[in-house]
Amino acid sequence: MKFTIDKAILLENLNNVIKGVSTKNVIPILNGIKFELTNQGLSLTASDSELTINSIIDAKEIKHIENTGTTIIQSKFLIDIIRKLPNDIIDFEMIDNLKVRIYTENDQFQLNCLDANDYPNLKMEEHKDPIILKGDILKGLINQTVFAISTQELRPLLTGINMTIVGDSLQFIATDSYRLAKKNIKLESPIDTDVNIVLPGKNVIELEKIIVDDENVEIHIFSNKVLFKYKNIKFQTNLLSGTYPNTSNLIPTEYGIIVKVNKEELIASVDRFSLLAQGKDKNIIRMQLSNKFITISSYASELGNANGKLSVDTDASSTIDISFSSKYMLEALKTIKEEEILLLMTDDVKPIVIKSVTDESLIQLILPIKTY
Amino acid sequence: MKFTIDKAILLENLNNVIKGVSTKNVIPILNGIKFELTNQGLSLTASDSELTINSIIDAKEIKHIENTGTTIIQSKFLIDIIRKLPNDIIDFEMIDNLKVRIYTENDQFQLNCLDANDYPNLKMEEHKDPIILKGDILKGLINQTVFAISTQELRPLLTGINMTIVGDSLQFIATDSYRLAKKNIKLESPIDTDVNIVLPGKNVIELEKIIVDDENVEIHIFSNKVLFKYKNIKFQTNLLSGTYPNTSNLIPTEYGIIVKVNKEELIASVDRFSLLAQGKDKNIIRMQLSNKFITISSYASELGNANGKLSVDTDASSTIDISFSSKYMLEALKTIKEEEILLLMTDDVKPIVIKSVTDESLIQLILPIKTY
Repeated sequence: MKFTIDKAILLENLNNVIKGVSTKNVIPILNGIKFELTNQGLSLTASDSELTINSIIDAKEIKHIENTGTTIIQSKFLIDIIRKLPNDIIDFEMIDNLKVRIYTENDQFQLNCLDANDYPNLKMEEHKDPIILKGDILKGLINQTVFAISTQELRPLLTGINMTIVGDSLQFIATDSYRLAKKNIKLESPIDTDVNIVLPGKNVIELEKIIVDDENVEIHIFSNKVLFKYKNIKFQTNLLSGTYPNTSNLIPTEYGIIVKVNKEELIASVDRFSLLAQGKDKNIIRMQLSNKFITISSYASELGNANGKLSVDTDASSTIDISFSSKYMLEALKTIKEEEILLLMTDDVKPIVIKSVTDESLIQLILPIKTY
Repeated sequence: MKFTIDKAILLENLNNVIKGVSTKNVIPILNGIKFELTNQGLSLTASDSELTINSIIDAKEIKHIENTGTTIIQSKFLIDIIRKLPNDIIDFEMIDNLKVRIYTENDQFQLNCLDANDYPNLKMEEHKDPIILKGDILKGLINQTVFAISTQELRPLLTGINMTIVGDSLQFIATDSYRLAKKNIKLESPIDTDVNIVLPGKNVIELEKIIVDDENVEIHIFSNKVLFKYKNIKFQTNLLSGTYPNTSNLIPTEYGIIVKVNKEELIASVDRFSLLAQGKDKNIIRMQLSNKFITISSYASELGNANGKLSVDTDASSTIDISFSSKYMLEALKTIKEEEILLLMTDDVKPIVIKSVTDESLIQLILPIKTY
């Protein structure tokens, strides 16, 4: 393997696949990135066995291919090394089977390689009829839901996003059982077979970083894995196995109290009073509604207490006195793009639903916290 | 105590004094900031008993003083609370002796206070004849030396900067015994009594952050403390007691090998090859001189090896093969403003001295590391 390549092109592709290398990996060869050079181009692959990312640099984009070959280069420092080489054009050359020389005019790195024969055979199959979404739509689906996944391994399914498709309706749901985020979109054409899968949250977060524009993403779904194809990148993740809990009954269908409020004012107020909020993790704050005002208040025994008023638009005649995690409320509010939002409530102990005034496709739900 | 003040003015002054509150403080009252309002203005004080910072907001800059008084307000979150209040004008009012209300139109924080009578009496004495330096000059003295102090408490004096004045010559020296930084400047007028004190490094780092321009800094030196006066700010630190080691014999007076090299190229090269450098803390790299070139190289057994060449300007006919900490070299090089620097060496085991071609006032010294 010997070739000459533009530093910027190589870095862009390495930065995408490097997300597939796990820092916790115990299989040594998976700490490497597979470089596979053919006359068609350079294929880069990284995997932690559950997530596999492949990026192909077309031969047209490679300055010069002297001879082809395959090797596994240690990923540690690889991107830094290439980034810090002083020239814009970089040469790669295998010295022997287990050493690659990466060099520019006056500088060279000789890096140990691993045997390409030991690298696992990572199949990245495709359907002939994938589901197709615009990149920015998929990015939005992820961003508006993934923050609500559970970080606790006790209930593994809740660390994922539940993706369902029925006809032309695609839905992402995430919940950690204290709050829930749900986003729906319409597909351009309906699909024949319903989909109900759970995408690992941590891998979806990496996918979101790779998508940067509205180019099409192909989604190829299999029984135990899913492949996302975007530009020259293939991103394949395992699925979480099991049946995602039915969450449809969690969202109330009727609300006694509907409050319209300016989103930025509410964010600023919740953020402000969460400074004195009790509880290390949850940052509990209290919201009281009466007389066309909501009052947000908080209390920390050692520091003091605080409160502030926001005028709101509501027809509700009843009052409410409800406590919730300010962190959860802020994360939910920040997913909504519109200026005016609705808080939909029933009473002091039932869920708070948050959505925009105009967009029905996104629902955020937070369970209140009992305080005594 | 009741007053109305501009949020921005209060924040600017609080941000300066907050650096005096230690996060490790065990004396509860020193976690508070002293607010002392008189008809002359608002005096803010914070201290960890070794470092005391005071900032006075003149009465002219305060919107309204309803009545005067003194209290100690918990510093935790105080700056965030004030910053996050929605209005530009903020009201303060003592509710009772141990509670202050900080409020704007619709929002209020009631914070617990501590008894002002319990706050230590922190004298901030002044001489009638202080030493005077421009702010930016003092900032430079600190920046070009303080990185070389020791972080190890085993030899407490080395955690400080040695400040000496003889006649009109002022000198800052810092060393952790592996490297040394020395910067000299001329005072506008000589002083009568020699000065030889050791400033605590961690406090000097805070002082450097407070100084933002070339306004005069008055330096009032006492036997066990020193007071820096800058604008409306008084910054008083204890001195480290003991005699700072004599470092003058560490710096060679003659050099067999003098190499002129472009600073940015050397920084980039050392930075590049430190990626593969051995040793977790020191990042040892090797520099060889021969034939008007220096070669920088490094080696990490598990990853590989690397090297690069730089052309240099030298009359030296002898070769050199020397190893050093890339971290120390980078920190030393970054203190030099000029483009061309000199590396002054004797042999493979004697110190490397680094200075600019034109400026004799700054000397950086690094001890080589023996490798086998």
